[in-house]
Amino acid sequence: MFCHDTQLRVRYAETDQMGVVYYGHYAQYLEVGRAETIRSLGYTYRELESSGILMPVTRLEIRYHRPARYDELLTIRTCLREPPGKHITFHGEIFNEEDRLLTTGQVTLAFYYRDTGRTGPPPALLMEKLNPFFP
Amino acid sequence: MFCHDTQLRVRYAETDQMGVVYYGHYAQYLEVGRAETIRSLGYTYRELESSGILMPVTRLEIRYHRPARYDELLTIRTCLREPPGKHITFHGEIFNEEDRLLTTGQVTLAFYYRDTGRTGPPPALLMEKLNPFFP
Amino acid sequence: MFCHDTQLRVRYAETDQMGVVYYGHYAQYLEVGRAETIRSLGYTYRELESSGILMPVTRLEIRYHRPARYDELLTIRTCLREPPGKHITFHGEIFNEEDRLLTTGQVTLAFYYRDTGRTGPPPALLMEKLNPFFP
Amino acid sequence: MFCHDTQLRVRYAETDQMGVVYYGHYAQYLEVGRAETIRSLGYTYRELESSGILMPVTRLEIRYHRPARYDELLTIRTCLREPPGKHITFHGEIFNEEDRLLTTGQVTLAFYYRDTGRTGPPPALLMEKLNPFFP
Repeated sequence: MFCHDTQLRVRYAETDQMGVVYYGHYAQYLEVGRAETIRSLGYTYRELESSGILMPVTRLEIRYHRPARYDELLTIRTCLREPPGKHITFHGEIFNEEDRLLTTGQVTLAFYYRDTGRTGPPPALLMEKLNPFFP
Repeated sequence: MFCHDTQLRVRYAETDQMGVVYYGHYAQYLEVGRAETIRSLGYTYRELESSGILMPVTRLEIRYHRPARYDELLTIRTCLREPPGKHITFHGEIFNEEDRLLTTGQVTLAFYYRDTGRTGPPPALLMEKLNPFFP
Repeated sequence: MFCHDTQLRVRYAETDQMGVVYYGHYAQYLEVGRAETIRSLGYTYRELESSGILMPVTRLEIRYHRPARYDELLTIRTCLREPPGKHITFHGEIFNEEDRLLTTGQVTLAFYYRDTGRTGPPPALLMEKLNPFFP
Repeated sequence: MFCHDTQLRVRYAETDQMGVVYYGHYAQYLEVGRAETIRSLGYTYRELESSGILMPVTRLEIRYHRPARYDELLTIRTCLREPPGKHITFHGEIFNEEDRLLTTGQVTLAFYYRDTGRTGPPPALLMEKLNPFFP
């Protein structure tokens, strides 16, 4: 298992008239969690794309326990529970400043190779970074 | 079962640099589907809120089969497969102009009563509109 | 002068905790107005891009007179007051259902030719469509 | 004059199919700049709202010089050039990692008092914080 924590602050733009974060914006929070988790491995999703590999999302699941509110500093814990195969699944948990669990989310993505126009196995460089965590 | 179809056109703002609609924006498409489905019953979510009942989302699940692209006129089919109880679940299917299924999504919401500060049963007026479809 | 009216309904996602549409989302409304204005000429921005011409925004100006609210059916009036040169400026006015002016906006864009990597004059096909309106 | 610098990283969600940040999202970047500028004064916009004062935007102007791209760490410099009166204007400049100016923006806001339902002068607490910078 490999986990990484990142923080972000809720923007006014992300609230809705219910006075809480709009349910669709958590997809962005989970995206930030994924990007920073990959960065913590000494790699970036930007480099991955530059090398011709895109990671389209194939499945999203979010459970909303408590609402996030404007200006809160959220902690996004992102975990890989299994090494990636044809797909990679990131498990996210979002906590508020009082360390209460607000949201849990799972995002599954594929590896799409631009040159072949097809999905395929995870890139070698990513596996190299992840192997130490899945001995 | 009760279903309603609505259409919307993909905005440039909704695409990302992969050249397709960003995965988080489908939550908005499903919201439009829900709002128009309720409107088709001769009622609106706006009125519901004015009467002091909010519908916070408790669960979201989306499966991405094919990407939606800029300027496509999408059809969102929104169905209620069961009468609402403590929760209501909207099942959405999003089709492109060639009638190919792009995305399926389920959104579950609760009924929150502002005066009591608690969730509760579905409002009588909504049930009245829905009862004919669940004999 | 050439004008075109289009309508859209405010989404819940577009409101913020002030109970009105977030100021940044009007850029999307103006985008919808532009796209539909070009479509009304028998042409689409999608085709323009396919032909290798992008239209990056160089300037945006919005004045907010009255707020737009959830579920309102807005009318976006988009006008070209002058034929395009190196730039094209769309003037937008957004009205609510009571026909009250909510917002005025101006968006200026350039024509970027992907093959040369440079900006240039407006495409011939667009000028052909617009010439009748600027005799 | 009072200025404050804050940083944020471009999200994938904020790009569009042109491969750069969508023009409407800069409004959010400017919002983050404003919020952090007020926080640097030992105050927050959240507290302001809690005390019954909202700050609706009345005018936005943005000039786009160069595009911001995915994953770039942007610096937003936010300045108050004059003490607020009936309105307050924040001047923003957005720089990329190479310290090149990408965007300049001005946002003007009013002070709306919830109890009277009217706009009014800047709140005393904000003026107290700002007075030292406008001797």
